[in-house]
Amino acid sequence: MLYRQKLVRTLRCKNKNVRGTLASLIATLSKAGADIGEISTVSVGELHNVRDISIIVNDEAELKNVIKAARAIPDVEVEQVIDDVLELHQHGKLTIQPTFPVYSIEDLRKVYTPGVASVCRLIQKDPKAARIYTSIAKTVALVTNGSRVLGLGNIGPVAAMPVMEGKAALFAQFTGLNMIPILINTLDIDEFVKTVEKISATFAAIQLEDIQTPDCFEIEEQLQKLPLPVMHDDQHGTAVVSLAAAINACKMAELDIHEATIGQIGLGAAGSAIARLMMRYTGKAVIGFDLKEESLARHKKFGGKTASLEELMKKANVVISTTGQAGLIKPTLVRKGQVILALSNPNPEISIVDALKAGASFASDGAQVNNLIGYPGIWKGVLDAGAKKITPEMYIAAAEAIAHSAPDKELVPSPLDPHVHDNVAHAVAKAATASGVASIPLDKDYFGETDGF
Amino acid sequence: MLYRQKLVRTLRCKNKNVRGTLASLIATLSKAGADIGEISTVSVGELHNVRDISIIVNDEAELKNVIKAARAIPDVEVEQVIDDVLELHQHGKLTIQPTFPVYSIEDLRKVYTPGVASVCRLIQKDPKAARIYTSIAKTVALVTNGSRVLGLGNIGPVAAMPVMEGKAALFAQFTGLNMIPILINTLDIDEFVKTVEKISATFAAIQLEDIQTPDCFEIEEQLQKLPLPVMHDDQHGTAVVSLAAAINACKMAELDIHEATIGQIGLGAAGSAIARLMMRYTGKAVIGFDLKEESLARHKKFGGKTASLEELMKKANVVISTTGQAGLIKPTLVRKGQVILALSNPNPEISIVDALKAGASFASDGAQVNNLIGYPGIWKGVLDAGAKKITPEMYIAAAEAIAHSAPDKELVPSPLDPHVHDNVAHAVAKAATASGVASIPLDKDYFGETDGF
Repeated sequence: MLYRQKLVRTLRCKNKNVRGTLASLIATLSKAGADIGEISTVSVGELHNVRDISIIVNDEAELKNVIKAARAIPDVEVEQVIDDVLELHQHGKLTIQPTFPVYSIEDLRKVYTPGVASVCRLIQKDPKAARIYTSIAKTVALVTNGSRVLGLGNIGPVAAMPVMEGKAALFAQFTGLNMIPILINTLDIDEFVKTVEKISATFAAIQLEDIQTPDCFEIEEQLQKLPLPVMHDDQHGTAVVSLAAAINACKMAELDIHEATIGQIGLGAAGSAIARLMMRYTGKAVIGFDLKEESLARHKKFGGKTASLEELMKKANVVISTTGQAGLIKPTLVRKGQVILALSNPNPEISIVDALKAGASFASDGAQVNNLIGYPGIWKGVLDAGAKKITPEMYIAAAEAIAHSAPDKELVPSPLDPHVHDNVAHAVAKAATASGVASIPLDKDYFGETDGF
Repeated sequence: MLYRQKLVRTLRCKNKNVRGTLASLIATLSKAGADIGEISTVSVGELHNVRDISIIVNDEAELKNVIKAARAIPDVEVEQVIDDVLELHQHGKLTIQPTFPVYSIEDLRKVYTPGVASVCRLIQKDPKAARIYTSIAKTVALVTNGSRVLGLGNIGPVAAMPVMEGKAALFAQFTGLNMIPILINTLDIDEFVKTVEKISATFAAIQLEDIQTPDCFEIEEQLQKLPLPVMHDDQHGTAVVSLAAAINACKMAELDIHEATIGQIGLGAAGSAIARLMMRYTGKAVIGFDLKEESLARHKKFGGKTASLEELMKKANVVISTTGQAGLIKPTLVRKGQVILALSNPNPEISIVDALKAGASFASDGAQVNNLIGYPGIWKGVLDAGAKKITPEMYIAAAEAIAHSAPDKELVPSPLDPHVHDNVAHAVAKAATASGVASIPLDKDYFGETDGF
C-alpha cells in the first residue's frame, strides 16, 4: 500500500550466559523503537551466547538509539551491526537460465541453427504458434519510470530497479512464470506509452508499476488499446487485496458488505481503484473524500459520491483509508459498529486500538494488505486463460479467492502460502472464461485442482 | 554467418537384427541427401533393434525422398518421424529464477519492503551503486525487429523470437550472465533507435541482431551515442570469428597475414565488418567486391579499395567471401597458394575440394565459423571491465583469443568448449583496460586465471 522507508539490520550480540539476558535485551530493543524480526543463535559458549537479532527501525537516528540502548545493558555486547539487506541485493536478484541446456553439437543444432529456422517459419505462417514455441506467453513486462517508488517519490528508473527485481523475483518463485523489469527513462506520458507499445510484442502482458498520479491513469488507459492485458498494480493489485480484506472484515463484523455504505478516504491511484472495484462489487456508489479536486472529479466520473471527511465518517459502515496521513481519522469521528481499514503503511490513519476503543466493530491497518498476495496469481490466471484483457469480474474473482484463502480470523493469507497464488490463478482464469475474454479453452482438470472454495 | 533454413528430424527405425542393416540404412540416408547426426539405441531385441537417427535435410521434398529411400530397405521399418526441434521449443527456452528464493517473512522484508527501500535510496544517492546492487550490470539486451533473420528475410519480430531465445539461452549457459530478448515492432530507424534509447537504462549493454542492411549501420551508429556498449553481432561478432579463422588459416598456410593482400567478396553487414576489422588488424587496405554501389562506397569510406571479382581473385593472397551465392567463385579464378574462406552457409561460394584442386593452399567453408564462439565471451569481458564502449582493439583481442583456443589443425574452437568464452572474456577485459575504456579496476587474479596464451 503506502510504504515509508524503514531500515532492516541484524545486531550480532554477545550475551552473558545468565538467565534473563536475552529477555532484557529484547525488551530494551523493543522499548527503544525496534521491531524485532528473527532471532538466531550463532554460537553457544560456557560464558556467552552469540545471537543474531534482526530488527526494523524507522531511520538512522532510531537505529543509533536502539544500538545505544542495547550497549547500555551490562551483560550484552553488540559485536556487529550487519546490513544484510545490502549483502543480499549484491549482483541483483534475477538470473536467466536456459530451459534446455546444450551439451552436444546435436543439441545445438536443435536449439540454434539450423533447427530453429523451422520454428521461426512456423510462427511466421501462424503467429499464434508463438504462444506455444516461445517464452512470450509466460512472460510479463514490469514497466516503470520510477516516478513514484514506495514512499520515496520520484527517484528515477534506475533507483527503482531493486523494487522491480524484488517483484519479478517473487513472481518467478510464486508462479514459475517470467517477469522482466523494463526501466523507461522518461516522464513524458506519450513517450512512455509509445516505448511500451513498440516493445510489447515481447511479452504476454504488461504490469505498470510505481508511476506517479495522475500520469498512471492516462498511461494505463492508452496502453489498454494494445492487444494484451495491462495492469497498473498500484491501482488494481491494491484494490484486489483491499477488497479481499474488506470482504473478510465485514464477515468478522457480521456486516453484509453488499448492503453496507462504503467510504473511501484518499482517492489517489490506490484509493480510486479500490472505490471503483467496490462499486463494481456491491453495485452501490462509494462515498469518496480527498483534498484534490481532480481526484474528486475522477471519482464522480466513475459513479462515486463525495463528502467531507466528517460526513463520510458519519454515513459509512465500512471505511477504507489510503491517504498516507497518520492520525487523519480522529477517534471522535468513529461511529459505533463501523468497520475501519486504515491501510496507510507503516502508520495508519487511526490505530487499531484507538478505532476499537472509539466503538469500531472491526479495525485493521495495512500491515497484512500486501500486493504480493495479488499480482502473481492474477497474472498466472490471465496467462493460463490467454486473456487479452482483464475485466472487473476477474479482479473480483481474485479478491474472493484471496478472501477465501485467508486462515480463520485473518483478513488475508500470507503471500508465502503457495496455495494462495494457485487459488487466485484458478479463479481469475475461470472468470476470464466466463467474461468471454479467454482465448485458451481451459482443461476441465484446471478447475478440478482447486479445493476448498 | 549466412544461414539457409534446414530441417532437423529424428527417424525412429526398427532394424532387423542382421549384421550390416544399420550400415546400409546410414548409407541409404546419406545417399538420399541427409546429413546424419546422433544415433541412439531405443531398444535392443532378439529380432529387431530400434534406433533413433537424427538427420538434417534441406527441405520437405528432400525429407520425403530420404524417408522413401529408408522405407525401401527390406530390413528397415521407419516407425516414426519425430520433429524433436519443435518439441524442444515448447514453452520457450528461457526461464527467470530468483537468485535468492524467499522462505520466510524475514526474507521477504529484506528482498522486498521495507528492506529494499534502503537499496533504492543508496542508488538514488550514488547511481554507480546500481552496478553492485541490481542485475543491470550483468544483463545484455538482445534487440531485433526481425527484418533479416537467418536466411529467412524480414519475418518480423515475433517469428524471430526462437532465434533470440536460443542466443539468450546459450549466452546464459556459457557465461552465467543475463541476456534478454527485446522485440521492437518497427522498421523505422528513428523509432527503433528512440525505443532502445528509452529502455537502455535497464541494461549494461545492447546487442543488435538480425536487422536488415543498410538500416543496421545507421541504427548502430546512432545507438553508439548512448553511454553503454552496443554491438551488432551480425557485423562485429561475425568479423571477430572470421578474423580468428583467417589468423589460423594463414598460420596453416604459412602465410604472414600482416603482409598478405586480403580480398573480401560481399560487403553486406558481415563482409563490411570483416573488411574493417581486417584493415584495423593488418594496417593495410582490404580489396572489396560487391554488386551494390552503396556497399562499395561504404567500403571506400572506411579506407578500403575496390576491384572486380576477377581482379580481386588475381591480387589477393587471402580471400574471404560472405555473399550467400553458392558457386560464385569459379575454380578458374583461384590462384595458386591462395587462402580461401568461403563462408556462406550452408552452400559456400566454392567448395573446399574445388578450391584445393584449383591450387589453393588452404580452403574452408563457414560450417565452423559460428557467432556463438564470439558474443558470449566478448560481452563477459566488456561487462567484467565495466567498459562503456567496445574498441576495435577489443574485437581484435577476442579474435586472437579465439584463434589461440582452437585445437590443433582446427580453424576455430567449438562454442561448447567452456574455456573459449573465458579466454575471450579475459582478452577483451584486458584490452578494454589497455584501451582506457574500462571503468572497473580488474583484479590481478583476473588475468592470472588465463593460461595458455
